[in-house]
Parts: sequence; structure tokens; C-alpha cells
Amino acid sequence: MGALDFAGGSVVHVNAGVAGLVCAWFLGRRTGYGREAFEPYNLGLTMAGAGLLWVGWFGFNAGSAVAADGRAGLAMAVTHLAAAAGALSWMLGEWVVRGRPSLLGLCSGLVAGLVAITPAAGFVTLRSAVVIGVVAGLACYWGATGLKRLLRADDSLDVFGVHGIGGIVGSLLTGMLASRTVGGVPGSLLTQAIGVGAVMAYSLVATAVLLWITNLAVGLRVDEQSEQTGLDIAQHRERLGS
Amino acid sequence: MGALDFAGGSVVHVNAGVAGLVCAWFLGRRTGYGREAFEPYNLGLTMAGAGLLWVGWFGFNAGSAVAADGRAGLAMAVTHLAAAAGALSWMLGEWVVRGRPSLLGLCSGLVAGLVAITPAAGFVTLRSAVVIGVVAGLACYWGATGLKRLLRADDSLDVFGVHGIGGIVGSLLTGMLASRTVGGVPGSLLTQAIGVGAVMAYSLVATAVLLWITNLAVGLRVDEQSEQTGLDIAQHRERLGS
Amino acid sequence: MGALDFAGGSVVHVNAGVAGLVCAWFLGRRTGYGREAFEPYNLGLTMAGAGLLWVGWFGFNAGSAVAADGRAGLAMAVTHLAAAAGALSWMLGEWVVRGRPSLLGLCSGLVAGLVAITPAAGFVTLRSAVVIGVVAGLACYWGATGLKRLLRADDSLDVFGVHGIGGIVGSLLTGMLASRTVGGVPGSLLTQAIGVGAVMAYSLVATAVLLWITNLAVGLRVDEQSEQTGLDIAQHRERLGS
Repeated sequence: MGALDFAGGSVVHVNAGVAGLVCAWFLGRRTGYGREAFEPYNLGLTMAGAGLLWVGWFGFNAGSAVAADGRAGLAMAVTHLAAAAGALSWMLGEWVVRGRPSLLGLCSGLVAGLVAITPAAGFVTLRSAVVIGVVAGLACYWGATGLKRLLRADDSLDVFGVHGIGGIVGSLLTGMLASRTVGGVPGSLLTQAIGVGAVMAYSLVATAVLLWITNLAVGLRVDEQSEQTGLDIAQHRERLGS
Repeated sequence: MGALDFAGGSVVHVNAGVAGLVCAWFLGRRTGYGREAFEPYNLGLTMAGAGLLWVGWFGFNAGSAVAADGRAGLAMAVTHLAAAAGALSWMLGEWVVRGRPSLLGLCSGLVAGLVAITPAAGFVTLRSAVVIGVVAGLACYWGATGLKRLLRADDSLDVFGVHGIGGIVGSLLTGMLASRTVGGVPGSLLTQAIGVGAVMAYSLVATAVLLWITNLAVGLRVDEQSEQTGLDIAQHRERLGS
Repeated sequence: MGALDFAGGSVVHVNAGVAGLVCAWFLGRRTGYGREAFEPYNLGLTMAGAGLLWVGWFGFNAGSAVAADGRAGLAMAVTHLAAAAGALSWMLGEWVVRGRPSLLGLCSGLVAGLVAITPAAGFVTLRSAVVIGVVAGLACYWGATGLKRLLRADDSLDVFGVHGIGGIVGSLLTGMLASRTVGGVPGSLLTQAIGVGAVMAYSLVATAVLLWITNLAVGLRVDEQSEQTGLDIAQHRERLGS
């Protein structure tokens, strides 16, 4: 039917986002969720990891041109701009709402921008990339805060808030912003919306079925003792640092 | 004599593996070896380092095509598959033997796959790459456990177990699996075995001579006090983290 | 006027170095500077970061050829050699002066080499790259120790010592070593010196004006209480690790 998806925005990110949300509903919340603060384990590693993601994403999006040509170069440039714009707009959102931007917000926002530019990478202008990044940063900030509360899911890594919402926003904006001027094909908001809806429906049903089978076969949730100890130790007998 | 070695499996990894083993024999075991557990310092950094190695290896193997062409693309694809297959087969080995796969096993197995595909990278099909990775993961798991006990060496980073065994396995399999269908030249198991044997003999003798000279000149092993304190502090007066 | 600058040695590094020095003078020293030791937070992360910088610099310098051609290959090769030479010569300097090379010196020296090769990358031979790296490592070691004491600035990350001095050394040596044999254009020491001087004067004045305005508008230095607590907590309410 011709929905545009340059480097897998729907098949990877919308799909993963919905699957993550269904998992979070199915598993239920962590013990203590809402009462205790669950801080990131090590923000320095979060920052390093986000930086590596940013660089690695160039391979992902530019590589989807399947040639070392001008389209690959365009994909790389728009990827960079969208990531930077997403980081800035998420931090701006935090600044307005909470009075202070955060390092975690910077990392989340750049991933939001990367996710949203993925379906658009070979089809849009540099200016459109900034628009996509700004909208994704703000939309995903809402996805990881206000929407998250509405959904009542303990989505601990904000898979739906960032990858789901970012993927949806990116797919829809690809339909609106895909441009002939960069050798792209014209898109359609309706076609993109139908494509995104189909992926969401498929992912929701398929994830639910797989979780249901897995739960019957081997069980999904550890006992509360293991949860308190932490799965690194309880399940894997390994710990990350000394 | 025409032994096949695409990106340096013998000159780098077999060589390094044998040199490491000779060093471990020459230096003797760490105080407490066999009685105390020597845990990895920080598994999170091990994981990050293994990921960087995986990506960096693309440059190493694909770069050995010395051109941005189809052979470089093939080298990159088989490198990726062998690393993934090695990680899975090492973990499978652990699962069968110890009842539980580990993060350290995943990291070791992917390196085993990377080592073994190195001499084969431009010469084999995607399917052969999976075979090489699977065999290397299992062989190197044995190299880092059963063989290690036989050799009675305190090879603390499993240089021989992973790089030595992985390099030998990769070189021999390159002789068996090099294929004309991907533009490679046909190999010979005998030629590969002679090549590997020559590298091992050279590395053993050269390393032993160099260690013997170095030991006479400046000494090789620190005193026991420094060993207990740790070389970071005793020799370098620096510590990694606070 | 034709000053040579392949990948931004003056616009990025000389500029940044002078701006950093002016900031350090303007802000004044940290409380306790000269009485307490300010150790690096985590040398392991410093090392990992320096390694990522080394790899990333290939994109920076080779990418400045704006083509995947022989000049990009040359830029990558000389970048690698200069970084290695800078690391070795800085450590040699430490060895002679303090009796012991350090991991921090290795990291600083490789960055010094990378900075100094930046303006020269597409213009010099492999042998000249080693010369540039060696000179930069020694010059920047002096920049971060002897010169730093002369300047009486608390330049905590040695921005001037490494990026400023490295950029100046690299720009001047580019004028002396740019070679027709690698398809470069002949340079002139005088032209390079005028170029570097212009950048330094501009950066000094512009930074001072911007700091003066910023200081009036929102203030530059936190109160001493925040400084003791640490800005991660006092300003950002985040901490890097647990």
C-alpha cells in the first residue's frame, strides 16, 4: 500500500514500543512502584551509551540507503539534526514543566529524535529534520510523563514513551514532510496512519499471545524475594560492578 | 606457500594466543590462584568493551579488503554472523555444563567468533560464517575451562583459550570452507595446518627468548607485596575509579 | 590569505584553547586549588573516552576530505600516527620529569597528537605526522604543567594546555611540513603564524566580551556552598553513579 518507512521506524520502533507496553501491563508493576524512587543505576554510563547510540544510528539510517551515495549522506545529516533537536526540545520541556533540564532528559530526547527521523531519513530536507526532532522531543517527553501516568504501566525504560510515541510521530510526519526536492517520493498522512495502526494492532495481539504462552510454559514474573535481591544476582549470579 | 589468512587470524590471534600462554607459564600463577575467586572488576565495562570490539572488528576485517567493495561488505556480514553465533554457542555450552549462561560467557563467545572469522572473512559464505562462529564458541569455551586446567597456566584473560584456540579453529576451518562462490580461492586443510603450526612454533620460541632476555634485564614478576596491593597502585600510582 | 587548515585546527582547537583560558582567568580558581589534590573522577572512563575520541577523530579529519578518496585515507593514516606518537612522547616526558609515565598522560598525549594533526591531516606525509605527534605531546605536556603554572589559571581540563598549545603547534608545523608529494600545497610558517595570531586575538576578545555580558546578565560563578556540594547536585540535582 506504499507507506513510507526509510530505515524501519514502524517495524522496529512502533513495534517495540507497543510490545514493551503490553509486557509492562502483563507483568504488572515493580514492587514499590509509585512509593520508592527508582533512580538510574549510573547516569555516566547512560550518557556514554546514548552517545554510542547516536553514532551507531548513523550506520543504521545511512546504511539503509544500501549505497555510499548522496542519499546516505542526506540520511546521516538529517539523523544528526533530529537527534540534536530532540535533545534540546525535551530539555526545554523539562525546563518549562519542572524548572530544570536534566542529563537523563538530554539522553532521552536525543533517542526520541533518532527514533522519529528513522522512517523519514532518506526522504526529508534538513529543515524538516529539525521539525521532526523538536516535535518528537516534546511528544516523547509527554509520553514518558503525562501519558505514562494515564496508561498506568510501569514501563521502566520508557519503551512506549520514547520508541512507541517517537515512532508514531516520525511515521506520521514522514507522510507530511517527505519531499521531492531531496529525491524523495510524496507521502500521505492517511497512508502512514493506516500503516502505523496496522503495526500497532499486530504488535499488540502478537505480543499478548506470546506472553500468554510463555507465562503458561515457564512463567514470566520472578518471586518477590528475587525481585528484592535483584535479577542480576537472583537469576544470573553476576553483578555489574564491584 | 599459500595459506589463506584474510585479516590476520594467524599473525595476530594465533601468535598472540601462544605468546600469552608462554608468558603465563613463565610468570607463574598469581598468589592465591585456585584458592581465591578472581572476579572480573566490572562486568558493565566488560560488556561495553566487548560491544566496542564487535564494532571495531568491522573496520579490521572489512578494511582488509582494502577497498569499499562487495568483498568488504561480505567480510562485514560474515564477521557479524560469526560473532553472534559464537556468543550463542558459548552460552549454550555454559548452559549445558553449568546450568546457566553468563554475561561474561556472552562477551567471551562473541570475541571467539570474531577471532575465528578473521582469517576467513573475505573467503566464506554467510552460512559458513555461522558454522565457524558456533564451532569457535564451543571450542574456546573448552579452551577457557577444560584445556586451561590441562595446561595448568594462570592465563587470567584467557588469551590462549580465546585468541589462540579461536585463531587455530578459524584458520583450519578457512581451509575447509573457503569458497569460489563468493569469489574466494579454494583452501587446503593441510596448508592451513602447516601455516598455523609454523606460527605457533615461531611465537613459542620468540616469546620465550624475549621473556628470558627481559627477565635478565629488568625482571618480570613484581614482589608479593606489590601483587597484594595491586599493580595499579604499586607500579603506576593510579587507580581506575574512586 | 591562504593559511592552511585541513580539518579545523585553528577554528576549533586554538579557538577553544584560548576561550578556555580566558574563562579560567575570569572565573578564578576553584576553592582549595593548590592546597587539595583534584584527582580525575574515574580513570577507566577517561581511558574509554579517549579511545572513543581517537576513533571519532578519524571521522572528523578524514571526513574533511569530503570524499571517500585517497586524501581521506591519508588523513586517517596521519591522524592515527600522530595520536600514537603524541601518547608516547607525553609519557616519555613524564618518565624523564617525574620518573613514571601515567595513564592520564597517555590519554592527554594522544589528544595532543590528534589536535596537532588536525590542521595538517590532508597535507603531510606519514613521517611528518610522527614528527607533529612527538612535538605536540612534549609541547602540550609542558602546556599542562610548566606553562600552566606560569599562566596561574585553574584550567581544570587543560583546555589551553592541550587544545590551545596543540592547535598552535599543529598550525605552525603544517606551514613547515605541508608537502607537494602527497598532493598538498606548500605552506608558509609566517602565514600560519599570522592565522593563529588572528584566531587567538579574536577568541580572546570575543570570549572576554561574552563572559562579561553573561556575568552581568545571570552571573558566572556559583556560591561557595554549591561549589563544595558539587555542581552535579547543587545545580542539576543529578549524580553520575550510585
